[in-house]
Order: sequence, then structure tokens, then C-alpha cells
Amino acid sequence: MTAPLHYAVIFTSLRRTASEDGYAETAARMEELARAQPGFLGIESARGEDGLGITVSYWESLDAIAAWGRHAEHLLAQQSGREKWYQIYSLRVCSVMQLREFRRPCAEGSS
Amino acid sequence: MTAPLHYAVIFTSLRRTASEDGYAETAARMEELARAQPGFLGIESARGEDGLGITVSYWESLDAIAAWGRHAEHLLAQQSGREKWYQIYSLRVCSVMQLREFRRPCAEGSS
Repeated sequence: MTAPLHYAVIFTSLRRTASEDGYAETAARMEELARAQPGFLGIESARGEDGLGITVSYWESLDAIAAWGRHAEHLLAQQSGREKWYQIYSLRVCSVMQLREFRRPCAEGSS
Repeated sequence: MTAPLHYAVIFTSLRRTASEDGYAETAARMEELARAQPGFLGIESARGEDGLGITVSYWESLDAIAAWGRHAEHLLAQQSGREKWYQIYSLRVCSVMQLREFRRPCAEGSS
């Protein structure tokens, strides 16, 4: 097994209700904070009409992921998530072993 | 490093256009086919209003992921994806090293 290219955290969730109660503000603040952490590489997020949300964040190391998980403001948000916002969630810490990327050539973009 | 719990494929994509041209049918067929593959564990998918789609599939082994990647009908769908549907995508094959799950107790579900 070769060394990981980088690391990923897959967070999938179902909201408990549609009520906000600070959810959107906290989600935006957590993304802002995550981007400022050492070892942060990127973040992608989508929530479909069925309510399933998937957020994937990318990191340079497992240590960086662990440090972000222990960040004081993040810990408070995690607690609110369990108490108020989420019906169910799964969090997976992953080693990224292979990466394939496709980008359509610019000239074909609008053809 | 302990052994992976299981494996995940993270597929993030931006559609080229909103035009269908067989996209929805093919996406549904690929999910149906994936569920029938040896070693398949699960799949979760979300596409947000900004057009970013994230699909994560879970597998028992890297061999199962590789076999699904080489499936004849899947190869045709991949080709259509590059030719017709996607502006950009990334595919990451991951080893899942940690898993944390939260489920709200049933009695609290509607409180």
C-alpha cells in the first residue's frame, strides 16, 4: 500500500427539522474556521432536496483533522448538532489513496 | 496504522449544462448496477442548488472498487460523462480509517 495522497473527512447528515435555530450561521462559521486551520486543503458540500447533506473536507494529515476536531468553537458546534440540528449523521476519516480528475477543455465548455 | 474499516469512493462533479440528454436515466441505472456488485456496502448522493454533486459509495475492498470501475456498462457511462455531462469531476478512492455515527434516540425525534 502506497502512502496516502492526502486525507478526507466525509460528513453525511440528515437534519432533524427544517427549523434553522442558528444552523446556517454556525455552518458558515465552521467552514470559515476550517479554512483557517493548519493543514486544511479544501471543502465541498451539497444538500439535496431529500434533506441528505454531504460535506467532504480535505486535509494534509490525520493530525490536522484531529486538531480541527478538538477546536473549542468546533466542539460547541458539534454539541449543538447533536442537541438541536441532526437526526442522524456519520463521520468518516479517510486516507485518499487514488485521485482522478477530469476537466473539460475550455474550448468545449459552451459548445 | 490499523486496517481500514472499509473503503469509499468520493465522486464530486459539476454538470456541464442542465440539459438531461440521458443523464438522469443513466445515473439511476448506475446506482442500480452498483448496488448489485460484489462488495457493495452503500451509496449516498446529494446535489446542491449551485450544481455541485457529491456521491459517496462504500465498498468492502479495493478489488471490488476496481471491478466496478471496469464494468462494461459503467465504462460506457463514464465515457458519456466525459463527452456530454460533466464540466469537471474528481474521483477519490479512500480507505476509511475511523467512523463515528450519531442517531437521535427515537423518543426525541419529534420533540
